[in-house]
Amino acid sequence: MHNMQARSATPLSARTRSNFTAFRSPSENPWKDLTDVETASVVQWLFQQPELNLTAANDAGEWDNTITLVELMRPNKSDVLQYLDHDQPPPTRYAHVVLDVRATLDPYYAEILVGPLPVTDQSATTWVPLEYPYTRKTQGRIRNLDADHDTIHSEWLYKISASIADITLDLFNGTALGLDNDTIRISGIDPLSILPLGLFFKSDVTGRDPSKWKLEGWFYNNTFYETTNAFRKAYYSPGFVKLPSNTEGDWARTDQQGPILPEDQKQPPVMVAPSGARYTFDTDQKYVTWMGFSFYIGFSRDTGVSIFDVRHKEQRILYELGLQEALSHYAGNDPVQSSTAYLDSYYGFGPYTFELVKGYDCPIYATYLNTSFYESESTHTHIDSLCIFEYDADYPIQRHTTPSYVSTTKNIYLTLRSVSTIGNYDYTISYTFHLDGTIGIDVRASGYIQAAHSAHNTNYGYQIHSALSGSMHDHILNFKADLDILGTANSIELTSLGPITTTYPWSNPNQPQNTMHLARRILSSETESRLNFISPNSQQTTTLSIINQDARNAYNESRGYRILPSSSPPSSGHLTIINSSTLNHAAHWSEHDIQITQHHDHEPRSAHPYNNQDVYNPMINFNEFFDGEDLNQTDLVVWINLAMHHVPTTGDLPNTVMTTAVAGVRFVPGNYFPGDQSRGTVNMLRVGFGDDEDVVEVETFGQAGERVEVVVRPVEEVLWG
Amino acid sequence: MHNMQARSATPLSARTRSNFTAFRSPSENPWKDLTDVETASVVQWLFQQPELNLTAANDAGEWDNTITLVELMRPNKSDVLQYLDHDQPPPTRYAHVVLDVRATLDPYYAEILVGPLPVTDQSATTWVPLEYPYTRKTQGRIRNLDADHDTIHSEWLYKISASIADITLDLFNGTALGLDNDTIRISGIDPLSILPLGLFFKSDVTGRDPSKWKLEGWFYNNTFYETTNAFRKAYYSPGFVKLPSNTEGDWARTDQQGPILPEDQKQPPVMVAPSGARYTFDTDQKYVTWMGFSFYIGFSRDTGVSIFDVRHKEQRILYELGLQEALSHYAGNDPVQSSTAYLDSYYGFGPYTFELVKGYDCPIYATYLNTSFYESESTHTHIDSLCIFEYDADYPIQRHTTPSYVSTTKNIYLTLRSVSTIGNYDYTISYTFHLDGTIGIDVRASGYIQAAHSAHNTNYGYQIHSALSGSMHDHILNFKADLDILGTANSIELTSLGPITTTYPWSNPNQPQNTMHLARRILSSETESRLNFISPNSQQTTTLSIINQDARNAYNESRGYRILPSSSPPSSGHLTIINSSTLNHAAHWSEHDIQITQHHDHEPRSAHPYNNQDVYNPMINFNEFFDGEDLNQTDLVVWINLAMHHVPTTGDLPNTVMTTAVAGVRFVPGNYFPGDQSRGTVNMLRVGFGDDEDVVEVETFGQAGERVEVVVRPVEEVLWG
Repeated sequence: MHNMQARSATPLSARTRSNFTAFRSPSENPWKDLTDVETASVVQWLFQQPELNLTAANDAGEWDNTITLVELMRPNKSDVLQYLDHDQPPPTRYAHVVLDVRATLDPYYAEILVGPLPVTDQSATTWVPLEYPYTRKTQGRIRNLDADHDTIHSEWLYKISASIADITLDLFNGTALGLDNDTIRISGIDPLSILPLGLFFKSDVTGRDPSKWKLEGWFYNNTFYETTNAFRKAYYSPGFVKLPSNTEGDWARTDQQGPILPEDQKQPPVMVAPSGARYTFDTDQKYVTWMGFSFYIGFSRDTGVSIFDVRHKEQRILYELGLQEALSHYAGNDPVQSSTAYLDSYYGFGPYTFELVKGYDCPIYATYLNTSFYESESTHTHIDSLCIFEYDADYPIQRHTTPSYVSTTKNIYLTLRSVSTIGNYDYTISYTFHLDGTIGIDVRASGYIQAAHSAHNTNYGYQIHSALSGSMHDHILNFKADLDILGTANSIELTSLGPITTTYPWSNPNQPQNTMHLARRILSSETESRLNFISPNSQQTTTLSIINQDARNAYNESRGYRILPSSSPPSSGHLTIINSSTLNHAAHWSEHDIQITQHHDHEPRSAHPYNNQDVYNPMINFNEFFDGEDLNQTDLVVWINLAMHHVPTTGDLPNTVMTTAVAGVRFVPGNYFPGDQSRGTVNMLRVGFGDDEDVVEVETFGQAGERVEVVVRPVEEVLWG
Repeated sequence: MHNMQARSATPLSARTRSNFTAFRSPSENPWKDLTDVETASVVQWLFQQPELNLTAANDAGEWDNTITLVELMRPNKSDVLQYLDHDQPPPTRYAHVVLDVRATLDPYYAEILVGPLPVTDQSATTWVPLEYPYTRKTQGRIRNLDADHDTIHSEWLYKISASIADITLDLFNGTALGLDNDTIRISGIDPLSILPLGLFFKSDVTGRDPSKWKLEGWFYNNTFYETTNAFRKAYYSPGFVKLPSNTEGDWARTDQQGPILPEDQKQPPVMVAPSGARYTFDTDQKYVTWMGFSFYIGFSRDTGVSIFDVRHKEQRILYELGLQEALSHYAGNDPVQSSTAYLDSYYGFGPYTFELVKGYDCPIYATYLNTSFYESESTHTHIDSLCIFEYDADYPIQRHTTPSYVSTTKNIYLTLRSVSTIGNYDYTISYTFHLDGTIGIDVRASGYIQAAHSAHNTNYGYQIHSALSGSMHDHILNFKADLDILGTANSIELTSLGPITTTYPWSNPNQPQNTMHLARRILSSETESRLNFISPNSQQTTTLSIINQDARNAYNESRGYRILPSSSPPSSGHLTIINSSTLNHAAHWSEHDIQITQHHDHEPRSAHPYNNQDVYNPMINFNEFFDGEDLNQTDLVVWINLAMHHVPTTGDLPNTVMTTAVAGVRFVPGNYFPGDQSRGTVNMLRVGFGDDEDVVEVETFGQAGERVEVVVRPVEEVLWG
């Protein structure tokens, strides 16, 4: 084991940032982050508005109003299309601001719009409540359940814990008193640990007056005690069963363990990029081009990376593609597992998009980009937290052996990747671009599972360590895919393979044939557009495509893109639980695999980061998007769920591995192009076999001098066919 | 475009073959191919047996008996386990021989066993009919429908074609007369082309007397004509509609086409292996070890590569893993598409496992192995037709960011790969081994689709070119996975996540909770072991594991391996058609996704290569494996289907691309090990952040001097958490 300390220097970073060809984007990026200057000017202006009664974050207590967020208000699609497609000026920029209004008995978050930007003329700048993108009309206000979290609530919790310090000391050899040397942590909705102790209490913390908060009972070993006294009395009674507890050890640590594997100290294979990057990048506009593809990158606090205006050979395929929300819903016999349903945009993917580990998260040669987020009146930057790289798949995209030659094509693809660590879990999200015109999303999960105490949890997970149950849970990640196939007027086609019994003109009319056929159907409206990928009829395979019936190819087939999810095992993309008692109306987007709505500027997002603050009356109730609107040749938005139904095993200790914790989707051309687009690459090879049996012909299509060496056998040895 | 001619030399090949560490296998490989000497001695001996009446292949006509196959008869598992596990001598070797008996009015294939090997004492050598591995008991004989294929049948076909040469010349500007300069091909079951012309005839070729064969009619443009005269009369009538035909062009060619993409002439990324191979290989015994895994390689005519005795840290996980059969079932309005159901082991994967293209099919640095097959009394070799290589996935197997450090682990895996081109399609089959103990199979398809004339085929595929329909078809590939989890006595566990409504001791009894739970079930017998991976209840996700209930871990969970298929889109692994009129009893294995039987030495294979010769009475009828036997703690065999339900689009022209034409399965540890096995690798990294904000600690676990450079940012810039 080698241990070294290193001072961070700049050289590699500087090198990797200049490893691409610079290229000027054809337009300004309408989704570009606010500049530091824009953010600073908005913050300064906000502090000048007396009615907001703002306090600087560093000076604020739990009864002060603060600025929680300042970021770009993404422009409406209708305005952007005027700019990109109709030579109009770029959309006016506005700041999306969230205020944490706590100087009141009823604390709330206030969403406002500030602009236009830049703030040059102070008097021309205004703020207005932001309401139009939300289904709940409250002038952009939603209650804040966590207003007293920082100190008042913690102090109250530690008093409860202190009241049973004798018991925690006896049971766990530890106490939780709110001290720096605490040996136990009280976990509510943010457990990072796989060391649950199996002791729970229930409290009512309604309102802002801690004197009115109530402890409502204790739960231990499947018994509920209504008071601390009742629990203490039982605890000190003869025969009280004490559960084993979980203690840390190598099993919970990620470092190398065990004897070193044979040959493992040799360096493993590694991808290299001998000619550097083959994509272009506009650093200023965050615009990427690669092998006919182009797209703009956007980044937000709630959902991290999105990409916009994704085109192939200048024709837009997607207006927008990006994460909307990530749900982790647990279940269990104990109140914590049973009541846990994280809606991760509350924490935000943006602030947790950390620096990538070069050579591990992405290749060394990748282009690494910074991301920024607002915190405490300034813009903070995570260095090298996005990466862009090309990679060579371990198999060709095309190959065929004929009796006279073999042809094969390299399968090079481009990836845009970020990793967001939301508490215990690390989500690696990759957008991929392929030579055949396919665009993909892959989500992989690693990190620590949220485990449960094993007591009485047999029906909710495997026991995976001494007193530990791998608490079962669903990860559901919702993505927005605003496809625009040759314009915004698109339709949804379902194509199903299914069995039939029929006769043909050439067949015996008395002997019907058992065979199969293709059924095609166009969906009409939002009354029938909430779908699952897995048909209840296991004999039928259905593919969903977004097509343009008014843009047909030479053979009268509608051009389109197919939406092909992938997961292992093949499973639903939606939540297992029906009508979750925990979620209520906060995440109706999670209830089907794929859901399609008519596009509206006022329905830009499927979820709101504060939906968890009022699950009965969330800011965005996805159900309300479905009001029966026409979906035939209109502007469509596809909302896709990627799911991992996770029942952890011992193999999830210490961390879940990404070999199987993966879900993805591919947008694949369906009669969109005249033929396979990968025929355009020069990175292919044809090896022909001449009449002279010692002679082979090698035909390469690129620059032979730069190619990887090719050796083929003569015909006599190969015995082709 | 660069064109060069190169003489094949040996240097790279010689280099790649010595790039691994040589290692002696602990046992002889009981599945090792026959040696050239063994094969030659068997052939010689067979020609000495007068009752077989054999003719050398080169001298044989359609009324002579020939030797079709000589290869190893794979030993019974019961005998092999005595050798591997109980210190008994290796199983006696026998040759599996197939004779093509055509010197008779009722031609048949005869399966016989010849041995014991080597043939040293001629008189000690015997042949016996091979019957025990087949469900149909015919002394190893099955009829040969193709006995007259070589000349007599062709001559007859060309007479028919010649009888309408005036029409084919007018319609297609071509003729099929059996001449070298024919411009049309008559395709029956072996169409290689995507140029169908839309003209069909029907014939009855029962028996071996061509004078009794009958032409039964013509089919054109959805009309059936009972005689050639009727067809000709209609053809020359006014108003006869002539269909457009398909002609070759760039659209059907695989070479580079179109303008060269920006930056594409730079060399793309490429995987390199700076320290060479990190696996060991026993060239003689075909035995591989890698990072705790070990396995033997076998190869056969019918099914190509299988692997045997797959172990992890010396504990057997799989006795056998290999392809059994590949079905391609088409459907369409025309009689050819509608009646096509290829059973590819008839052609054999072995003879069509061709040389791999280095740097395309597998990395340049891979270890390339030869494969051999029997043909015309000798052993033929395909040079470099298997490859073994390590690869670095483009994402780590594990990663987690904590507030004080980030840890991450490289995701290196081993692949054993071959490509078999069965006519128009190239199947790339990869067996993969992963650091967490996972074993995988991936099948990818490329090559030319079998297309149909577009006339009246709208319900069977998209029109993808002028007169071309992308004929819909199912690919179903059956694999045998003989798992042995800590011994042969194993059970099948189904674990299902599903919704429930319940109350808990801590919850309000009047407010039941909508949540989910885990249901576990052990299957009892073959009466309930034919399953689909996709539950008809889309709200439920079920995982199938092979476990050993008598081998529990420290937490009383049964140790096992989960079987997780993957496909895109998530679809059934089984055939769409119910009770296919074409297949009848020939491929009942294709009717469910996963099917489990009790192991028997007499049920080694799910399919027989000549099942297509008598679909009503096939040699192996998979249904007969299911006779209600106990499956609880017995030796189990898992038969898994990997499927691609393929509706070709224009993107399949000229070739299907492998980005989406893929199906796979993973065998994943399920409470099998105490923890994640990837913790054993040294190819991981931990970057810690000290108190001094300029200091980072980089901890590597391998040999730092050989590692890829690591640069991380200091804390102040990174703002961890």
